[in-house]
Amino acid sequence: MAFSELKNDIFLRALLKQPVPYTPVWMMRQAGRYLPEYRELRAKAGDFLTLCKTPELACEVTMQPLRRFDLDAAILFSDILTIPDAMGLGLYFDVGEGPKFKQVIRSQADVAALPALNIEVDLNYVLAATQLIRETLKGQVPLIGFSGSPWTLATYMVEGGSTKDFRNIKRMLYETPDVLHALLEKLAQAVTDYLNGQIRAGAQAVQLFDTWGGVLTPETYQNFSLHYMTKIINGLIKECDGRKVPVILFTKNAGLWLESMAHSGADALGLDWSIDIADARRRVGERVALQGNMDPSVLYGDAEKIRMTVKTILEKYGSGSGHIFNLGHGISQDVNPAHAKVFIDAVHELSASQHGGC
Amino acid sequence: MAFSELKNDIFLRALLKQPVPYTPVWMMRQAGRYLPEYRELRAKAGDFLTLCKTPELACEVTMQPLRRFDLDAAILFSDILTIPDAMGLGLYFDVGEGPKFKQVIRSQADVAALPALNIEVDLNYVLAATQLIRETLKGQVPLIGFSGSPWTLATYMVEGGSTKDFRNIKRMLYETPDVLHALLEKLAQAVTDYLNGQIRAGAQAVQLFDTWGGVLTPETYQNFSLHYMTKIINGLIKECDGRKVPVILFTKNAGLWLESMAHSGADALGLDWSIDIADARRRVGERVALQGNMDPSVLYGDAEKIRMTVKTILEKYGSGSGHIFNLGHGISQDVNPAHAKVFIDAVHELSASQHGGC
Repeated sequence: MAFSELKNDIFLRALLKQPVPYTPVWMMRQAGRYLPEYRELRAKAGDFLTLCKTPELACEVTMQPLRRFDLDAAILFSDILTIPDAMGLGLYFDVGEGPKFKQVIRSQADVAALPALNIEVDLNYVLAATQLIRETLKGQVPLIGFSGSPWTLATYMVEGGSTKDFRNIKRMLYETPDVLHALLEKLAQAVTDYLNGQIRAGAQAVQLFDTWGGVLTPETYQNFSLHYMTKIINGLIKECDGRKVPVILFTKNAGLWLESMAHSGADALGLDWSIDIADARRRVGERVALQGNMDPSVLYGDAEKIRMTVKTILEKYGSGSGHIFNLGHGISQDVNPAHAKVFIDAVHELSASQHGGC
Repeated sequence: MAFSELKNDIFLRALLKQPVPYTPVWMMRQAGRYLPEYRELRAKAGDFLTLCKTPELACEVTMQPLRRFDLDAAILFSDILTIPDAMGLGLYFDVGEGPKFKQVIRSQADVAALPALNIEVDLNYVLAATQLIRETLKGQVPLIGFSGSPWTLATYMVEGGSTKDFRNIKRMLYETPDVLHALLEKLAQAVTDYLNGQIRAGAQAVQLFDTWGGVLTPETYQNFSLHYMTKIINGLIKECDGRKVPVILFTKNAGLWLESMAHSGADALGLDWSIDIADARRRVGERVALQGNMDPSVLYGDAEKIRMTVKTILEKYGSGSGHIFNLGHGISQDVNPAHAKVFIDAVHELSASQHGGC
């Protein structure tokens, strides 16, 4: 398929550490509940999963923040748990609670019973949404595809939903590691196919969300999370329409392990707010671009506080390309959208002097 | 008061990096639900808070793991939320849920209304338990006192209980930082008095539990958590019965910030399992002792796995004193007590060769 030419490719260039006129910015969870127009559409749709599973609605929700803010990227609106849902575990949301599954994975037999996915069929609604969004964007900004990491997906599949202590999956890890490896292997294959499907459907960069990799030890992070993400990255389509498709790897609470993450083959690492971005650049900035890392809670503060924090992070990163500004995690649902605008405009305004033009 | 002479002071010596014949070990939450005798006593008592508030029961629970295992320290059985409870917030526990408060702190007026505590009166039950435990120990091993850190206590007081997103306290931090500082100041004074009360009543070392400091940024951790812990440490009784009372500082998920923690005045830093203890020693081992850091979930594994992990951590720390073996967080309630015994015995057996004797 032929899409419109890209008008703003600053995000893609920054991911590859090519010169840019200013630091690009987007926000994790930028399409979401903090926007009144999102809440209105969701109320009409009835529930969150209907938004995800109806390409027209997913597209509309994806576009909403782009109408308000001068963002440098769009991100596919979807859930991180589409893969286990497609495998038949029965994803649902109770009011006011996190995601839950009707079935859980606890044994080798449970893993063996999980079907291999045919992404074009089983997750067609995501690919259709991706294509529709890319068309609707008309080249305004690049479109980011994404998936949960195998380890992160596995935590929900084994626990049956959100968890505070990861008791069941950690028991599996230490009691029957082979069962967990078998599960992660299946998930790695599915995620590879899923992201390649998104790239073929129009995603111009992809992000792996390893939300829960940070609960592991240095050694088990290597073997049970990073290993599978590296395998996925190796299996991804490298170029589309003659342009490299950059990969962003985001493990929350993994600031101690950046060096090994930088050897995964990812083009950029996502950073949460627990690390000083100057330290991160010093440690791995030669090898990868860095995406982050303002605490989303700073958006509770006033305009002056927000601008001051943006300025500090820009100065810490320093001059030159390779920085994509973002929050260190998703924007909170009770943030005033006007504060998000202050944030995004501040990144553009305050970063221009750090770049030599291009 | 005169207590029995201490027979095993290896824990205290390791905290001060003095020579020891083997690496001492204790477990966070070693008195707790994984022990059948604990569950039995708790069922009889009716609830958790009755155990905490009845010195005889708190003493019995503290002693239970010492009868089973060759531990090198006892730790006062209590809750981290005794201070806000004594301030009148009304601590309670719903079945199967975390702690909750009947009242929350949200404004300057709320903070102003919090009473200054008279520890000897308002938390007398903790001091009575401390003294009774120390007497009951008859010098078998040292007794550790503890408190939650001001930041960690404040998270519960502002959120009204456990939280996943720290939304209200982070809003306070960025919207009305002066209100939060006023709260933390009051708590720092109360914690100082509380720990000094415990030391006078018989605690031979104290630990500050900053369970939630790791959700902050490098800068806000300094200003809203570490600053107040440093102030507390400066205000503590330094010696008791002619012996130094060492202070252990434990912030979970703070592996990136060890250098600043090592300048707090603490004698030892507690480490969770996310950091390689060899890195931690290289970074701050000249200045402080290190306590940790096996993932408690390793205790789900078999004896061989447990012993192998203990061996690896001992080797990573290397030779010489200054290491107190512990889990990186509290022991899980569904661990088999026999596995805890394997762990504790393995530390003693496998560490002897790393020490030159004393």
